[in-house]
Amino acid sequence: MMPAPALVSLVSGLYPALADSPPPGWEQDLAALGNAVEVPAGTVLFDEGAPCRGFPLVLAGEVRVARGTPHGRAIELYRVQPGELCVVSAACLFGQAVLSAHGVAVQPSRLLLLPAPVFMRWSDHEPFRRHVFALFAARMADLIALTEAVAFQRLDQRLAAALLGRGPVLHLTHQQLADELGTVREMVTRLLKRFEQAGWVALGRERVQVLDAAALRQLAAGGAQ
Amino acid sequence: MMPAPALVSLVSGLYPALADSPPPGWEQDLAALGNAVEVPAGTVLFDEGAPCRGFPLVLAGEVRVARGTPHGRAIELYRVQPGELCVVSAACLFGQAVLSAHGVAVQPSRLLLLPAPVFMRWSDHEPFRRHVFALFAARMADLIALTEAVAFQRLDQRLAAALLGRGPVLHLTHQQLADELGTVREMVTRLLKRFEQAGWVALGRERVQVLDAAALRQLAAGGAQ
Repeated sequence: MMPAPALVSLVSGLYPALADSPPPGWEQDLAALGNAVEVPAGTVLFDEGAPCRGFPLVLAGEVRVARGTPHGRAIELYRVQPGELCVVSAACLFGQAVLSAHGVAVQPSRLLLLPAPVFMRWSDHEPFRRHVFALFAARMADLIALTEAVAFQRLDQRLAAALLGRGPVLHLTHQQLADELGTVREMVTRLLKRFEQAGWVALGRERVQVLDAAALRQLAAGGAQ
Repeated sequence: MMPAPALVSLVSGLYPALADSPPPGWEQDLAALGNAVEVPAGTVLFDEGAPCRGFPLVLAGEVRVARGTPHGRAIELYRVQPGELCVVSAACLFGQAVLSAHGVAVQPSRLLLLPAPVFMRWSDHEPFRRHVFALFAARMADLIALTEAVAFQRLDQRLAAALLGRGPVLHLTHQQLADELGTVREMVTRLLKRFEQAGWVALGRERVQVLDAAALRQLAAGGAQ
């Protein structure tokens, strides 16, 4: 178990908004929470339809928050990285409802679960409350932009965008790309083959190599294909 | 101008969560706000990219919150009715960002704009804060469900669902239905003609008459067409 001062120092470094103007008693609260949880990649941290147990602070790793369907398809909503708080948990903590999304650790991750009463006490403190409102606002804006992109942007444009900014070689399956984009694997495979014929990518097993990032960028921006 | 006690009484009736455990000084705050704004149907109340001026309390009428695109298409995100608060405003009040959606009165409406400092002071009061967190949570869950529906549910199913629960005759244009569903008019027209050929609807000018609600319900639920 990590000693309380080390945990406070770790959280302070990751969450400056918290450390710059901490809620009264937050060091004791963190100490009382005990240890952060270490989970391997692939761990389901919270699930749709389940009651939730608190607000996860991500101290290391990355959590993918997605909404699944009864047919096993999923659309990625956003990712929570160290220094961020997963606000989707608020749905069941305050709305008396169950979770509308699930969270999976995409890397080995370390998390601290802030119970609802602690969260509520901290938000008595205006700077923390302002931070939480801003987080909700940012996630809502993200979700609105995602809804719009899914509704209006052509899938080829969104796929091109999804291939950029991740280095020259992506190690992932067509299914993983389909999940990210909220579509089915067959559509992704068909488009990737078109990209390959155009000389923009080279395809391998669980592997997409970007050969012409400029062409992908132009397509992602809405240019002619 | 409505006398302050009448305004307090109106707000109390519409917002029981507020009236049951009011923030200290809320009656004076409401009195200081002065009059509620009366707007005709079609008024743009807030717009994308604009700074926002406060949290609108809807006292009468209905506000449609939607996200537009540069091409003039829009997808309806949700509607705010009397007794509800429009939380999308939080994006610019707390996130230092501009609005990511626009709001239009769909009926003659009466609104009260709660300025950010008043909103922040009220949320010092735990019951009000809990109500706001719950609102954020509910809207996030709505947006997540909408994103999923747009990503995965077939347009014919969503159109069938959109025609139900609005009485036997709908007075609206194909463009209005397209906006609601986040698609283009041509797609809606093509599907409506298919529904008409099946004997499920009769089409007129700015008019859709539902002839076979059971068939539409079956399609909306995912049944074969």
